[in-house]
Amino acid sequence: MLVNGENLTTIWYDINKDQVKIIDQRLLPHKLEIVTLENLTDSAFAIKEMQVRGAPLIGVTAAYGLYLASKEKTEINFLINSGKILKKTRPTAVNLAWAVDKILKEIQDVDENNRSNHILKMAHSIRQNDIDACSNIGNNGLKLLKEIYNKKKSTINILTHCNAGWLATVDWGTALSPIFKAHQDNIPIHVWVDETRPRNQGFNLTAWELINEGVPNSLIVDNVGGHLMQHGMIDVCITGTDRTTINGDVCNKIGTYLKALAAYDNHIPFYVAAPISSIDFSIEDGIKDIPIEERDAKEVSFINGINTKGEIQELSIVPSNAYCKNYAFDVTPSKYITKIITEKMIVEPNKQSISKLL
Amino acid sequence: MLVNGENLTTIWYDINKDQVKIIDQRLLPHKLEIVTLENLTDSAFAIKEMQVRGAPLIGVTAAYGLYLASKEKTEINFLINSGKILKKTRPTAVNLAWAVDKILKEIQDVDENNRSNHILKMAHSIRQNDIDACSNIGNNGLKLLKEIYNKKKSTINILTHCNAGWLATVDWGTALSPIFKAHQDNIPIHVWVDETRPRNQGFNLTAWELINEGVPNSLIVDNVGGHLMQHGMIDVCITGTDRTTINGDVCNKIGTYLKALAAYDNHIPFYVAAPISSIDFSIEDGIKDIPIEERDAKEVSFINGINTKGEIQELSIVPSNAYCKNYAFDVTPSKYITKIITEKMIVEPNKQSISKLL
Repeated sequence: MLVNGENLTTIWYDINKDQVKIIDQRLLPHKLEIVTLENLTDSAFAIKEMQVRGAPLIGVTAAYGLYLASKEKTEINFLINSGKILKKTRPTAVNLAWAVDKILKEIQDVDENNRSNHILKMAHSIRQNDIDACSNIGNNGLKLLKEIYNKKKSTINILTHCNAGWLATVDWGTALSPIFKAHQDNIPIHVWVDETRPRNQGFNLTAWELINEGVPNSLIVDNVGGHLMQHGMIDVCITGTDRTTINGDVCNKIGTYLKALAAYDNHIPFYVAAPISSIDFSIEDGIKDIPIEERDAKEVSFINGINTKGEIQELSIVPSNAYCKNYAFDVTPSKYITKIITEKMIVEPNKQSISKLL
Repeated sequence: MLVNGENLTTIWYDINKDQVKIIDQRLLPHKLEIVTLENLTDSAFAIKEMQVRGAPLIGVTAAYGLYLASKEKTEINFLINSGKILKKTRPTAVNLAWAVDKILKEIQDVDENNRSNHILKMAHSIRQNDIDACSNIGNNGLKLLKEIYNKKKSTINILTHCNAGWLATVDWGTALSPIFKAHQDNIPIHVWVDETRPRNQGFNLTAWELINEGVPNSLIVDNVGGHLMQHGMIDVCITGTDRTTINGDVCNKIGTYLKALAAYDNHIPFYVAAPISSIDFSIEDGIKDIPIEERDAKEVSFINGINTKGEIQELSIVPSNAYCKNYAFDVTPSKYITKIITEKMIVEPNKQSISKLL
């Protein structure tokens, strides 16, 4: 998608240098910095430290990470161990394990000399499939937005939480893909962007994406959505998901559940954009069965921003001796979700409908 | 309440200097600075710029503000105009208008020479009544916490949003008053402190109060409460209120509504601590009838904290060209509220019960 008027993706293979390139998303929106991944360690670091984030992009990065590992050794045990290292970096995102396991399974039967090349092709294919899937999610979600526009016949106000834009994938995004498609289709839209504390992916990434694409948007703190819904200022919510159960429970960025409750209370549709790779068909009850990642308390007590000199800086925003807790995701029970938008089709948040995707 | 082991209140009259003293709460938790109010302008500034905040404290500050105005002139039109200036500073808080109108009504019949002295006495009395009311709210709320403790027989986990502690009043606070009383009564409690973006009163003020009083607490971002409730990690919510309707709709800091929805969804009691002065008996429907203050967008796009040198500093936390909206309050419909704790008694969130307070 557009950055300063030029097209960019979040991860790509540099064929001339045999390297993988990513955007260091930790510096956004203040600085655009391209980082090179040269080996397994770089890749694991990129995922763990959130240079890349978002379930689909994590999966693609892990695939290229395995390729970079295979440049060192192509022995199967070494690659399995490399896969373990990658999988340990973020426990909640199902795409990570999915990409690693898919590659490891397939290369067992591939001759050791061809393995590295084979993994690279698979990584390319996972990357391209992600772009196609996101584009299709956009096309499917666009139908839902068109329905709303055809009824309302004026600007559609859309709330989104966290970043499920192209920065969370390779291109297009998931929750933002229907938004970009609607904007390109000249449907008048306005997006309410949730800050998404503690890492502020809404302000840092979603707002940056929308501003760069020229989509009208307003930034709000996470507390505001309910008030806007009560006053008819939101027509529809669209979020992404890190993991969705076969029953339609959605595990997504912490705070998603609160917005879904407010949407339900105000009879506003709450759509979840979910690539099929993010659906975990093996579990039913999201609250019981999905482990919630607890992250470093410093993400809560410190905040990044830009000072008057234009430098990125960090401040402490808690009293001395404060004790902080940092839960990264929550689970929205399926009853609060209106539809799940996948690349294949739009499904209902229940087992019968989601099973059709299998 | 305790600050570094010594007792302090938020506002007091210095009889020797004939001045009013307040804590500049904008510098908390990083610096404790006592500010002198010398005249009407200082008082209006203190309310408008949130050196003082919290509905009850705003009321007391306005009362002293009228006294400081009366030191200049005691003519009734001048005082009425001074009242108007004070009332314009924050449109949502009902205590402000209440305090100003109460004084203006009473002094009409007071001889001009005695007016200033009379207003000072009234301000003292409003201040002392606030302390007594808050203490009684604490005693009444304590009964509810004791009920929970008697059932659970282990640490009670309490969620609070924003700051309704002693810093929002003169002493004790409203929502935090039962918490301080429970702690002094040796009931084991732990408080989850909502950050309360955009002004972070939870981290800056509530956490600071609790740490100074030695009440166990953990700081969380505003997105977390729902997740904790789903996992049995919150036993009860207590918040304050800026304005409550006769039907029991509660206007409080933006985001309160979202926590009330989550409490309702998880069958957790949601208590609101409301001094009777904050109840607006003249309105019924909170969503329709309470105007919601929209504040400077800079409160969203900039954040205050402390840098590595120990200096208070400000950072921008949004992309350049971002457009922010800043709604300060929301309304929680009465059906999501379990009980309203006043200084007189505990009432149900409905007209019949609230009318008993009249």
